[in-house]
Amino acid sequence: MLSALDPTLLLVLNLFGTVAFALSGAMAGVRARLDVFGVLVMAFVVGLAGGIARDLVLGIPAQSVKDWRFILAVLAAGLAVAIAHPVLERMSRPVEFLDACGLAIFCVSGAAVALRHDANVGEAIILGMITAIGGGVVRDMLLTEVPIVLRRGLYAVPAALGAGVIVLADAAGANSVLWPALGAAACLALRLVGLRFDINLPRPAGRER
Amino acid sequence: MLSALDPTLLLVLNLFGTVAFALSGAMAGVRARLDVFGVLVMAFVVGLAGGIARDLVLGIPAQSVKDWRFILAVLAAGLAVAIAHPVLERMSRPVEFLDACGLAIFCVSGAAVALRHDANVGEAIILGMITAIGGGVVRDMLLTEVPIVLRRGLYAVPAALGAGVIVLADAAGANSVLWPALGAAACLALRLVGLRFDINLPRPAGRER
Amino acid sequence: MLSALDPTLLLVLNLFGTVAFALSGAMAGVRARLDVFGVLVMAFVVGLAGGIARDLVLGIPAQSVKDWRFILAVLAAGLAVAIAHPVLERMSRPVEFLDACGLAIFCVSGAAVALRHDANVGEAIILGMITAIGGGVVRDMLLTEVPIVLRRGLYAVPAALGAGVIVLADAAGANSVLWPALGAAACLALRLVGLRFDINLPRPAGRER
Repeated sequence: MLSALDPTLLLVLNLFGTVAFALSGAMAGVRARLDVFGVLVMAFVVGLAGGIARDLVLGIPAQSVKDWRFILAVLAAGLAVAIAHPVLERMSRPVEFLDACGLAIFCVSGAAVALRHDANVGEAIILGMITAIGGGVVRDMLLTEVPIVLRRGLYAVPAALGAGVIVLADAAGANSVLWPALGAAACLALRLVGLRFDINLPRPAGRER
Repeated sequence: MLSALDPTLLLVLNLFGTVAFALSGAMAGVRARLDVFGVLVMAFVVGLAGGIARDLVLGIPAQSVKDWRFILAVLAAGLAVAIAHPVLERMSRPVEFLDACGLAIFCVSGAAVALRHDANVGEAIILGMITAIGGGVVRDMLLTEVPIVLRRGLYAVPAALGAGVIVLADAAGANSVLWPALGAAACLALRLVGLRFDINLPRPAGRER
Repeated sequence: MLSALDPTLLLVLNLFGTVAFALSGAMAGVRARLDVFGVLVMAFVVGLAGGIARDLVLGIPAQSVKDWRFILAVLAAGLAVAIAHPVLERMSRPVEFLDACGLAIFCVSGAAVALRHDANVGEAIILGMITAIGGGVVRDMLLTEVPIVLRRGLYAVPAALGAGVIVLADAAGANSVLWPALGAAACLALRLVGLRFDINLPRPAGRER
């Protein structure tokens, strides 16, 4: 299925998703009063950690660290935030939209990379989700917060949906570029609906601790 | 030595240990007020992260993520906790016992996997301990707590004992299924004694910070 | 280039850097009131985690865990701190100097290992930095603090300088043992200047959160 995707288009999409996540990481770093190096690290980590975690679980060397285009992309995003943070901070809507696009791109491309490395259905869905969500989890851990994706919002379910569409289509032998596009669109739509209506998953009943 | 172990028995034991740890992770997630997805992630992470960390250090792909039985086991445990948390919360004794069984199984099976991948004595003991303890460390880090295994209780020492028994027996050329059983039993017994008498390791003298 | 380095000298330097970092990790553990096992884990993690992270990104098994000399080195450092912590605590200047030496050794040796495994220029610099900084980041995360290297001090820039010297020299085909020595010396000098004059990187303007 992935062979049906134009490699240049895939690269552009992945760079776009990486920059979107790097921006969100760098902005969290500025808000947490990190220094310039810390802000660059946050851009690097949030932009690339999801894909790196996927590669580690697959047992392959981290792909993005080898590719200067991804390194330059996260550093440029980090520098842009370090310089223009006050402007970006006022644009929370566009930044949320960019982040949703990153989620949609990464859940599909992460699952596709997993399939290309012979992952089975369950593994590919999980690795698509890890690719899409991992960066934000590491961001929150570095800033000593319980990862927000585990607590509220509708963030992981859209990633599971997007990864699920492409993985199940692949399992059914479908070989059209439409399926990745459909997976990403479904993820993006559900994420935007969740943002718009402030949807949260239910919380199991437990005693406060 | 591992060849002396019946593969089906080994699988059943590993699934049992995974479920025990997944239950403890999911319960910690409910107590920390995570949403349903967060509770499932905690079940996944605490059930599988120790083994995944072992595989990464060994330089092999993560085994459990490839195996739908382990994925289903952690998801089922997470769902069970999400639904039946109030009941489970009242059963802290049985849950502690289950967790001690998981510790005993994982320190032995983790060391055995390491030996099968040509780890030396020291590496195999360390990887047995990482398999048994890793999940709980990641659980505490995700919930922004200093890992409890580093602070109190007798948790790591039983794991070292269990891993040590099987690793040293293997180094001595012993090839009986008795040794893994003995290692696990020693770990379990020491862990239960520690729980019963509330034993803690000494704490080096230092200034409070 | 690395072939120009005497293997025994390289081993001794790496052991020295590992012990320096293990001491700093164990002391942080004592200050955080960990028990003896926790202090040993902190010595292990801070001494070895940077190199392990580098190996994982390169897709090779963790080298240090296979080598009993490194395991013994971190355990000895941890035990020494557990016993002699009050004495070491009064020697903060020498400990800071040791840590700076560890930084200088690891950024160069980490980059050299990456080059030996066919890393490109950017990857080798990043992996040299990860080797040098990774241990401290994991130390702070385990103790639920935002990693200090992201917040203040001049710590990452010297590591980048040291790694940059050896990587660029290698890219230029230079093949003398002088270059690793120069890289380490440049890193050490810049780190000590930063300590002496309490230099911090600028902090992007952002709202407190």
